[in-house]
Amino acid sequence: MLRIRVVLVEPESEGNVGAVARAMKNFQIEDLVLVKPCPLDVEARKRAMHGAPILSAAQSFDDIDRAILGAGLVVGTSGIETESEKRFARIAMTPRDLAAHVAPLEGTLAIVFGREDFGLYDEELAKCDLLVTIPASKEYPILNLSHAVAILLYELSLPRTPRPHRREASGMEKEKLHAALTALLEATDYPSHKRVRTRIMFRRLLGRAAPSKWEFHALMGVFQRATKRIQRLEAKR
Amino acid sequence: MLRIRVVLVEPESEGNVGAVARAMKNFQIEDLVLVKPCPLDVEARKRAMHGAPILSAAQSFDDIDRAILGAGLVVGTSGIETESEKRFARIAMTPRDLAAHVAPLEGTLAIVFGREDFGLYDEELAKCDLLVTIPASKEYPILNLSHAVAILLYELSLPRTPRPHRREASGMEKEKLHAALTALLEATDYPSHKRVRTRIMFRRLLGRAAPSKWEFHALMGVFQRATKRIQRLEAKR
Repeated sequence: MLRIRVVLVEPESEGNVGAVARAMKNFQIEDLVLVKPCPLDVEARKRAMHGAPILSAAQSFDDIDRAILGAGLVVGTSGIETESEKRFARIAMTPRDLAAHVAPLEGTLAIVFGREDFGLYDEELAKCDLLVTIPASKEYPILNLSHAVAILLYELSLPRTPRPHRREASGMEKEKLHAALTALLEATDYPSHKRVRTRIMFRRLLGRAAPSKWEFHALMGVFQRATKRIQRLEAKR
Repeated sequence: MLRIRVVLVEPESEGNVGAVARAMKNFQIEDLVLVKPCPLDVEARKRAMHGAPILSAAQSFDDIDRAILGAGLVVGTSGIETESEKRFARIAMTPRDLAAHVAPLEGTLAIVFGREDFGLYDEELAKCDLLVTIPASKEYPILNLSHAVAILLYELSLPRTPRPHRREASGMEKEKLHAALTALLEATDYPSHKRVRTRIMFRRLLGRAAPSKWEFHALMGVFQRATKRIQRLEAKR
Protein backbone atom coordinates (compact mmCIF):
# COMPACT_ATOMS: atom_id res chain seq x y z
CA MET A 1 0.00 0.00 0.00
CA LEU A 2 1.06 3.53 -0.73
CA ARG A 3 2.28 5.66 2.17
CA ILE A 4 1.31 9.30 1.81
CA ARG A 5 3.46 12.17 3.05
CA VAL A 6 2.07 15.71 3.19
CA VAL A 7 4.69 18.40 2.55
CA LEU A 8 3.85 22.05 3.25
CA VAL A 9 6.30 24.57 1.78
CA GLU A 10 6.63 27.78 3.81
CA PRO A 11 3.13 27.84 5.31
CA GLU A 12 2.43 31.28 6.75
CA SER A 13 -0.63 30.60 8.89
CA GLU A 14 -0.24 28.34 11.90
CA GLY A 15 -4.02 27.86 11.90
CA ASN A 16 -3.77 26.34 8.43
CA VAL A 17 -1.01 23.97 9.53
CA GLY A 18 -3.17 22.86 12.47
CA ALA A 19 -6.18 22.35 10.20
CA VAL A 20 -4.01 20.27 7.85
CA ALA A 21 -2.97 18.02 10.77
CA ARG A 22 -6.65 17.52 11.66
CA ALA A 23 -7.56 16.60 8.05
CA MET A 24 -4.65 14.15 8.01
CA LYS A 25 -5.95 12.47 11.17
CA ASN A 26 -9.43 12.30 9.57
CA PHE A 27 -7.97 10.38 6.63
CA GLN A 28 -5.40 8.34 8.59
CA ILE A 29 -2.31 9.99 7.11
CA GLU A 30 0.43 10.59 9.70
CA ASP A 31 3.53 11.80 7.87
CA LEU A 32 3.67 15.62 7.90
CA VAL A 33 6.83 17.43 6.73
CA LEU A 34 7.25 21.20 6.81
CA VAL A 35 9.67 23.36 4.83
CA LYS A 36 10.54 26.63 6.62
CA PRO A 37 7.20 26.84 8.42
CA CYS A 38 5.88 29.79 10.41
CA PRO A 39 6.12 29.36 14.21
CA LEU A 40 3.54 26.82 15.43
CA ASP A 41 1.86 27.69 18.71
CA VAL A 42 -1.51 27.64 20.46
CA GLU A 43 -3.65 28.34 17.36
CA ALA A 44 -2.05 25.48 15.40
CA ARG A 45 -2.67 23.00 18.24
CA LYS A 46 -6.22 24.28 18.72
CA ARG A 47 -7.12 23.80 15.06
CA ALA A 48 -5.40 20.39 14.92
CA MET A 49 -7.87 18.92 17.45
CA HIS A 50 -7.20 15.14 17.53
CA GLY A 51 -4.50 15.68 14.90
CA ALA A 52 -2.25 17.37 17.49
CA PRO A 53 0.11 14.35 17.73
CA ILE A 54 0.68 14.58 13.95
CA LEU A 55 1.60 18.24 14.41
CA SER A 56 4.04 17.44 17.22
CA ALA A 57 5.67 14.67 15.20
CA ALA A 58 6.03 16.82 12.06
CA GLN A 59 9.58 17.22 10.77
CA SER A 60 10.84 20.61 9.59
CA PHE A 61 13.52 21.17 6.97
CA ASP A 62 15.14 24.17 5.33
CA ASP A 63 14.78 22.92 1.78
CA ILE A 64 12.34 20.90 -0.26
CA ASP A 65 14.95 18.31 -1.28
CA ARG A 66 15.16 17.02 2.28
CA ALA A 67 11.36 17.06 2.55
CA ILE A 68 10.82 14.79 -0.46
CA LEU A 69 13.75 12.48 0.31
CA GLY A 70 12.77 8.83 0.01
CA ALA A 71 9.53 9.48 -1.86
CA GLY A 72 9.08 7.28 -4.93
CA LEU A 73 6.67 9.75 -6.47
CA VAL A 74 6.45 13.49 -5.85
CA VAL A 75 3.19 15.27 -6.68
CA GLY A 76 3.05 19.05 -6.74
CA THR A 77 -0.18 20.98 -6.30
CA SER A 78 -1.14 24.11 -8.18
CA GLY A 79 -4.19 26.33 -8.15
CA ILE A 80 -3.31 27.91 -11.47
CA GLU A 81 -4.08 26.08 -14.65
CA THR A 82 -1.88 26.77 -17.59
CA GLU A 83 -3.38 27.98 -20.85
CA SER A 84 -0.44 26.84 -22.91
CA GLU A 85 0.57 23.22 -23.31
CA LYS A 86 4.15 24.36 -23.68
CA ARG A 87 4.21 25.55 -20.11
CA PHE A 88 4.46 21.84 -19.40
CA ALA A 89 5.70 22.33 -15.84
CA ARG A 90 2.17 23.46 -14.98
CA ILE A 91 0.07 20.89 -16.87
CA ALA A 92 -1.93 19.21 -14.15
CA MET A 93 -4.13 16.17 -13.60
CA THR A 94 -7.26 16.11 -11.45
CA PRO A 95 -7.24 14.64 -7.92
CA ARG A 96 -9.48 11.83 -9.18
CA ASP A 97 -7.10 10.91 -12.00
CA LEU A 98 -4.24 11.03 -9.50
CA ALA A 99 -6.09 8.67 -7.14
CA ALA A 100 -6.65 6.19 -9.99
CA HIS A 101 -3.04 6.56 -11.15
CA VAL A 102 -1.45 5.88 -7.76
CA ALA A 103 -3.91 3.23 -6.52
CA PRO A 104 -1.74 0.26 -7.66
CA LEU A 105 1.56 1.80 -6.54
CA GLU A 106 3.72 0.96 -3.52
CA GLY A 107 6.19 3.09 -1.58
CA THR A 108 5.94 6.71 -0.50
CA LEU A 109 3.95 9.40 -2.31
CA ALA A 110 4.86 12.97 -1.30
CA ILE A 111 2.20 15.58 -2.02
CA VAL A 112 3.74 19.04 -1.97
CA PHE A 113 1.58 22.08 -1.19
CA GLY A 114 2.90 25.60 -1.79
CA ARG A 115 2.68 28.89 0.03
CA GLU A 116 -0.78 30.33 0.77
CA ASP A 117 -0.07 33.33 -1.48
CA PHE A 118 2.45 32.26 -4.15
CA GLY A 119 2.02 28.48 -4.32
CA LEU A 120 5.06 26.56 -5.51
CA TYR A 121 7.86 28.23 -7.45
CA ASP A 122 8.92 26.89 -10.85
CA GLU A 123 12.12 25.39 -9.47
CA GLU A 124 10.03 23.49 -6.88
CA LEU A 125 7.53 22.31 -9.52
CA ALA A 126 10.46 21.04 -11.57
CA LYS A 127 11.18 18.50 -8.80
CA CYS A 128 7.66 17.04 -9.06
CA ASP A 129 6.88 13.92 -11.11
CA LEU A 130 3.23 14.91 -11.49
CA LEU A 131 1.15 17.99 -10.94
CA VAL A 132 -2.39 18.04 -9.63
CA THR A 133 -4.99 20.84 -9.66
CA ILE A 134 -8.36 20.84 -7.93
CA PRO A 135 -10.97 21.85 -10.54
CA ALA A 136 -12.55 25.06 -9.24
CA SER A 137 -14.00 28.40 -10.30
CA LYS A 138 -11.93 30.16 -12.98
CA GLU A 139 -12.77 33.40 -11.21
CA TYR A 140 -11.35 32.32 -7.84
CA PRO A 141 -9.56 28.97 -8.07
CA ILE A 142 -7.31 29.41 -5.02
CA LEU A 143 -8.54 27.18 -2.22
CA ASN A 144 -7.59 27.56 1.41
CA LEU A 145 -4.48 25.42 2.04
CA SER A 146 -6.15 23.01 4.46
CA HIS A 147 -9.17 22.68 2.13
CA ALA A 148 -6.84 21.65 -0.69
CA VAL A 149 -5.17 19.08 1.58
CA ALA A 150 -8.54 17.75 2.78
CA ILE A 151 -9.84 17.29 -0.78
CA LEU A 152 -6.65 15.56 -1.94
CA LEU A 153 -6.57 13.20 1.04
CA TYR A 154 -10.29 12.52 0.63
CA GLU A 155 -9.75 11.48 -3.01
CA LEU A 156 -6.64 9.43 -2.25
CA SER A 157 -8.19 7.63 0.71
CA LEU A 158 -11.45 6.69 -1.04
CA PRO A 159 -10.12 3.50 -2.62
CA ARG A 160 -8.91 2.45 0.84
CA THR A 161 -12.05 3.28 2.81
CA PRO A 162 -14.65 0.51 2.90
CA ARG A 163 -18.07 1.68 1.80
CA PRO A 164 -20.74 1.83 4.49
CA HIS A 165 -22.07 -1.63 5.16
CA ARG A 166 -25.61 -2.08 3.93
CA ARG A 167 -27.35 -5.40 3.35
CA GLU A 168 -29.52 -4.98 0.27
CA ALA A 169 -32.78 -6.82 -0.14
CA SER A 170 -32.33 -9.93 -2.32
CA GLY A 171 -34.10 -10.44 -5.64
CA MET A 172 -36.40 -12.97 -3.99
CA GLU A 173 -37.30 -10.51 -1.26
CA LYS A 174 -38.07 -7.84 -3.81
CA GLU A 175 -40.35 -10.24 -5.68
CA LYS A 176 -42.19 -10.97 -2.42
CA LEU A 177 -42.69 -7.24 -2.09
CA HIS A 178 -44.11 -7.00 -5.59
CA ALA A 179 -46.46 -9.90 -4.81
CA ALA A 180 -47.54 -8.12 -1.63
CA LEU A 181 -48.29 -4.99 -3.66
CA THR A 182 -50.32 -7.05 -6.14
CA ALA A 183 -52.31 -8.55 -3.27
CA LEU A 184 -52.95 -5.11 -1.85
CA LEU A 185 -54.13 -3.76 -5.21
CA GLU A 186 -56.49 -6.71 -5.44
CA ALA A 187 -57.77 -6.28 -1.90
CA THR A 188 -58.43 -2.58 -2.46
CA ASP A 189 -60.24 -3.42 -5.71
CA TYR A 190 -57.84 -1.09 -7.48
CA PRO A 191 -59.04 -0.20 -11.05
CA SER A 192 -57.75 -3.10 -13.12
CA HIS A 193 -56.55 -0.97 -16.03
CA LYS A 194 -54.27 0.96 -13.64
CA ARG A 195 -52.81 -2.06 -11.87
CA VAL A 196 -50.19 -2.88 -14.47
CA ARG A 197 -48.66 0.58 -14.65
CA THR A 198 -48.80 0.94 -10.85
CA ARG A 199 -46.85 -2.29 -10.51
CA ILE A 200 -44.33 -1.11 -13.10
CA MET A 201 -43.99 2.26 -11.35
CA PHE A 202 -43.26 0.46 -8.08
CA ARG A 203 -40.75 -1.86 -9.76
CA ARG A 204 -38.85 1.10 -11.21
CA LEU A 205 -38.96 2.89 -7.87
CA LEU A 206 -37.48 -0.09 -6.03
CA GLY A 207 -34.92 -0.46 -8.80
CA ARG A 208 -33.63 3.04 -8.23
CA ALA A 209 -33.93 2.95 -4.44
CA ALA A 210 -32.10 -0.39 -3.95
CA PRO A 211 -33.83 -1.04 -0.62
CA SER A 212 -32.02 -2.60 2.32
CA LYS A 213 -33.25 -5.76 4.02
CA TRP A 214 -34.64 -3.65 6.79
CA GLU A 215 -36.55 -1.43 4.37
CA PHE A 216 -37.87 -4.55 2.63
CA HIS A 217 -39.26 -5.88 5.90
CA ALA A 218 -40.74 -2.48 6.78
CA LEU A 219 -42.54 -2.16 3.43
CA MET A 220 -43.73 -5.79 3.52
CA GLY A 221 -45.21 -5.09 6.94
CA VAL A 222 -47.15 -2.09 5.64
CA PHE A 223 -48.52 -3.86 2.56
CA GLN A 224 -49.41 -7.14 4.30
CA ARG A 225 -51.02 -5.45 7.27
CA ALA A 226 -53.21 -3.30 5.00
CA THR A 227 -54.23 -6.29 2.86
CA LYS A 228 -55.11 -8.45 5.86
CA ARG A 229 -57.06 -5.66 7.48
CA ILE A 230 -59.15 -5.18 4.34
CA GLN A 231 -59.71 -8.92 3.95
CA ARG A 232 -60.86 -9.25 7.56
CA LEU A 233 -63.24 -6.28 7.24
CA GLU A 234 -64.59 -7.64 3.95
CA ALA A 235 -65.21 -11.05 5.58
CA LYS A 236 -67.23 -9.41 8.36
CA ARG A 237 -69.61 -7.65 6.00
CA MET B 1 -29.21 22.88 -13.53
CA LEU B 2 -29.36 22.31 -9.81
CA ARG B 3 -28.96 25.31 -7.54
CA ILE B 4 -27.09 24.46 -4.34
CA ARG B 5 -27.82 26.10 -0.99
CA VAL B 6 -25.48 25.63 1.95
CA VAL B 7 -27.25 25.64 5.33
CA LEU B 8 -25.18 25.85 8.53
CA VAL B 9 -27.08 25.03 11.71
CA GLU B 10 -25.83 26.87 14.79
CA PRO B 11 -22.19 27.26 13.76
CA GLU B 12 -20.11 28.22 16.79
CA SER B 13 -16.88 29.41 15.13
CA GLU B 14 -17.00 32.52 12.97
CA GLY B 15 -13.71 31.45 11.39
CA ASN B 16 -15.43 28.30 10.14
CA VAL B 17 -18.32 30.29 8.66
CA GLY B 18 -15.82 32.53 6.85
CA ALA B 19 -13.91 29.49 5.54
CA VAL B 20 -17.21 28.01 4.31
CA ALA B 21 -17.93 31.23 2.36
CA ARG B 22 -14.49 31.02 0.73
CA ALA B 23 -15.01 27.37 -0.27
CA MET B 24 -18.39 28.33 -1.74
CA LYS B 25 -16.75 31.05 -3.84
CA ASN B 26 -14.14 28.52 -5.00
CA PHE B 27 -16.92 26.25 -6.27
CA GLN B 28 -19.27 29.00 -7.52
CA ILE B 29 -22.02 28.40 -4.96
CA GLU B 30 -23.54 31.65 -3.65
CA ASP B 31 -26.55 30.76 -1.50
CA LEU B 32 -25.53 30.60 2.17
CA VAL B 33 -28.20 30.31 4.88
CA LEU B 34 -27.44 30.29 8.60
CA VAL B 35 -29.59 29.02 11.46
CA LYS B 36 -28.89 30.79 14.77
CA PRO B 37 -25.24 31.49 13.92
CA CYS B 38 -22.58 32.84 16.26
CA PRO B 39 -21.77 36.55 15.78
CA LEU B 40 -19.83 37.09 12.54
CA ASP B 41 -17.06 39.66 12.75
CA VAL B 42 -13.50 40.35 11.61
CA GLU B 43 -12.27 36.72 11.75
CA ALA B 44 -15.16 35.50 9.57
CA ARG B 45 -14.47 38.14 6.91
CA LYS B 46 -10.73 37.46 7.05
CA ARG B 47 -11.17 33.75 6.47
CA ALA B 48 -13.79 34.33 3.74
CA MET B 49 -11.22 36.10 1.51
CA HIS B 50 -12.92 36.59 -1.88
CA GLY B 51 -15.99 34.84 -0.47
CA ALA B 52 -16.76 37.89 1.72
CA PRO B 53 -19.74 38.99 -0.45
CA ILE B 54 -21.32 35.54 0.08
CA LEU B 55 -20.91 36.03 3.82
CA SER B 56 -22.53 39.48 3.68
CA ALA B 57 -25.43 38.20 1.61
CA ALA B 58 -26.06 35.19 3.89
CA GLN B 59 -29.56 35.01 5.37
CA SER B 60 -30.03 34.05 9.03
CA PHE B 61 -33.10 32.32 10.47
CA ASP B 62 -34.16 31.06 13.86
CA ASP B 63 -35.29 27.66 12.70
CA ILE B 64 -34.28 25.09 10.12
CA ASP B 65 -37.74 25.04 8.46
CA ARG B 66 -37.24 28.57 7.17
CA ALA B 67 -33.70 27.70 6.05
CA ILE B 68 -34.78 24.79 3.85
CA LEU B 69 -37.91 26.52 2.49
CA GLY B 70 -38.19 26.17 -1.29
CA ALA B 71 -35.60 23.38 -1.56
CA GLY B 72 -36.78 20.46 -3.69
CA LEU B 73 -34.32 18.13 -2.00
CA VAL B 74 -32.82 18.44 1.48
CA VAL B 75 -29.59 16.58 2.23
CA GLY B 76 -28.34 16.25 5.79
CA THR B 77 -24.70 15.62 6.64
CA SER B 78 -23.48 13.35 9.40
CA GLY B 79 -20.05 12.38 10.60
CA ILE B 80 -21.34 9.39 12.50
CA GLU B 81 -22.15 6.23 10.65
CA THR B 82 -24.81 4.05 12.09
CA GLU B 83 -24.06 0.44 12.92
CA SER B 84 -27.67 -0.62 12.77
CA GLU B 85 -29.80 -0.53 9.63
CA LYS B 86 -32.81 0.10 11.82
CA ARG B 87 -31.46 3.48 12.82
CA PHE B 88 -32.59 4.41 9.35
CA ALA B 89 -32.53 8.14 10.04
CA ARG B 90 -28.73 7.88 10.00
CA ILE B 91 -28.16 5.62 7.00
CA ALA B 92 -26.01 7.70 4.69
CA MET B 93 -24.74 7.75 1.15
CA THR B 94 -21.27 8.90 0.07
CA PRO B 95 -20.68 12.36 -1.46
CA ARG B 96 -19.86 10.64 -4.77
CA ASP B 97 -23.14 8.72 -4.82
CA LEU B 98 -24.94 11.93 -3.94
CA ALA B 99 -23.28 13.77 -6.85
CA ALA B 100 -24.35 11.03 -9.26
CA HIS B 101 -27.85 10.97 -7.79
CA VAL B 102 -28.49 14.71 -8.09
CA ALA B 103 -26.68 15.32 -11.42
CA PRO B 104 -29.87 15.05 -13.54
CA LEU B 105 -32.07 17.01 -11.11
CA GLU B 106 -33.36 20.58 -11.38
CA GLY B 107 -34.37 23.05 -8.68
CA THR B 108 -32.76 23.78 -5.33
CA LEU B 109 -30.71 21.31 -3.29
CA ALA B 110 -30.18 22.34 0.33
CA ILE B 111 -27.21 20.72 2.06
CA VAL B 112 -27.54 21.01 5.80
CA PHE B 113 -24.44 20.95 8.03
CA GLY B 114 -24.79 20.58 11.80
CA ARG B 115 -23.06 22.04 14.81
CA GLU B 116 -19.28 21.65 15.11
CA ASP B 117 -19.70 19.55 18.27
CA PHE B 118 -23.08 17.80 18.10
CA GLY B 119 -23.89 17.75 14.36
CA LEU B 120 -27.59 17.60 13.50
CA TYR B 121 -30.21 16.47 16.01
CA ASP B 122 -32.58 13.62 15.19
CA GLU B 123 -35.52 15.99 14.65
CA GLU B 124 -33.41 17.93 12.12
CA LEU B 125 -32.29 14.75 10.34
CA ALA B 126 -35.94 13.75 10.09
CA LYS B 127 -36.52 16.71 7.79
CA CYS B 128 -33.84 15.53 5.33
CA ASP B 129 -34.66 13.51 2.20
CA LEU B 130 -31.18 12.03 2.07
CA LEU B 131 -28.21 11.74 4.37
CA VAL B 132 -24.58 11.94 3.30
CA THR B 133 -21.40 10.99 5.19
CA ILE B 134 -17.83 11.64 4.10
CA PRO B 135 -15.95 8.34 4.37
CA ALA B 136 -13.18 8.92 6.91
CA SER B 137 -11.17 7.27 9.67
CA LYS B 138 -13.31 5.24 12.08
CA GLU B 139 -11.05 6.49 14.84
CA TYR B 140 -11.68 10.19 14.12
CA PRO B 141 -14.36 10.70 11.48
CA ILE B 142 -15.37 14.25 12.48
CA LEU B 143 -14.06 16.69 9.89
CA ASN B 144 -13.73 20.40 10.40
CA LEU B 145 -17.00 22.04 9.29
CA SER B 146 -15.47 23.99 6.39
CA HIS B 147 -13.52 20.90 5.27
CA ALA B 148 -16.79 18.96 5.08
CA VAL B 149 -18.40 21.77 3.05
CA ALA B 150 -15.37 21.98 0.72
CA ILE B 151 -15.39 18.23 0.03
CA LEU B 152 -19.16 18.16 -0.62
CA LEU B 153 -19.02 21.17 -2.95
CA TYR B 154 -15.98 19.71 -4.72
CA GLU B 155 -17.87 16.47 -5.41
CA LEU B 156 -21.07 18.23 -6.45
CA SER B 157 -19.30 20.69 -8.74
CA LEU B 158 -17.15 18.12 -10.56
CA PRO B 159 -19.79 17.19 -13.16
CA ARG B 160 -20.16 20.91 -13.91
CA THR B 161 -16.46 21.80 -14.12
CA PRO B 162 -14.89 21.28 -17.54
CA ARG B 163 -11.79 19.13 -17.43
CA PRO B 164 -8.52 20.90 -18.18
CA HIS B 165 -8.13 21.28 -21.91
CA ARG B 166 -5.40 19.08 -23.32
CA ARG B 167 -4.91 18.15 -26.97
CA GLU B 168 -3.73 14.55 -27.03
CA ALA B 169 -1.42 13.26 -29.69
CA SER B 170 -3.33 11.43 -32.44
CA GLY B 171 -2.86 7.77 -33.27
CA MET B 172 -0.94 8.74 -36.42
CA GLU B 173 1.38 10.98 -34.43
CA LYS B 174 2.05 8.19 -31.97
CA GLU B 175 2.90 5.83 -34.83
CA LYS B 176 5.35 8.40 -36.19
CA LEU B 177 6.94 8.44 -32.77
CA HIS B 178 7.27 4.64 -32.78
CA ALA B 179 8.83 4.82 -36.25
CA ALA B 180 11.27 7.45 -34.99
CA LEU B 181 12.24 5.17 -32.10
CA THR B 182 12.76 2.28 -34.51
CA ALA B 183 15.01 4.48 -36.64
CA LEU B 184 16.98 5.50 -33.57
CA LEU B 185 17.43 1.88 -32.45
CA GLU B 186 18.70 1.07 -35.92
CA ALA B 187 21.04 4.05 -36.02
CA THR B 188 22.52 3.17 -32.63
CA ASP B 189 22.99 -0.44 -33.78
CA TYR B 190 20.90 -1.51 -30.81
CA PRO B 191 21.14 -5.30 -30.13
CA SER B 192 18.55 -6.74 -32.47
CA HIS B 193 17.18 -9.28 -29.96
CA LYS B 194 16.35 -6.41 -27.59
CA ARG B 195 14.70 -4.16 -30.16
CA VAL B 196 11.29 -5.79 -30.10
CA ARG B 197 10.81 -5.64 -26.36
CA THR B 198 12.18 -2.09 -26.22
CA ARG B 199 9.59 -1.04 -28.78
CA ILE B 200 6.84 -2.81 -26.83
CA MET B 201 8.01 -1.17 -23.61
CA PHE B 202 7.81 2.22 -25.28
CA ARG B 203 4.38 1.49 -26.72
CA ARG B 204 3.05 0.56 -23.26
CA LEU B 205 4.66 3.64 -21.75
CA LEU B 206 3.01 5.94 -24.29
CA GLY B 207 -0.26 4.10 -23.79
CA ARG B 208 -0.25 4.89 -20.10
CA ALA B 209 1.13 8.41 -20.45
CA ALA B 210 -1.34 9.56 -23.16
CA PRO B 211 1.05 12.25 -24.43
CA SER B 212 -0.17 15.67 -25.54
CA LYS B 213 0.57 17.03 -29.01
CA TRP B 214 3.28 19.15 -27.51
CA GLU B 215 4.90 16.18 -25.78
CA PHE B 216 4.72 14.26 -29.07
CA HIS B 217 6.61 17.01 -30.88
CA ALA B 218 9.15 17.28 -28.07
CA LEU B 219 9.88 13.52 -28.12
CA MET B 220 10.00 13.42 -31.94
CA GLY B 221 12.58 16.19 -31.81
CA VAL B 222 14.78 14.25 -29.42
CA PHE B 223 14.64 10.98 -31.38
CA GLN B 224 15.04 12.50 -34.85
CA ARG B 225 17.89 14.78 -33.81
CA ALA B 226 19.78 11.87 -32.24
CA THR B 227 19.22 9.66 -35.28
CA LYS B 228 20.35 12.34 -37.76
CA ARG B 229 23.39 13.19 -35.67
CA ILE B 230 24.49 9.55 -35.64
CA GLN B 231 23.83 9.16 -39.38
CA ARG B 232 25.87 12.28 -40.17
CA LEU B 233 28.77 11.17 -37.97
CA GLU B 234 28.69 7.67 -39.50
CA ALA B 235 28.78 9.20 -43.00
CA LYS B 236 31.94 11.17 -42.12
CA ARG B 237 33.90 8.13 -40.94
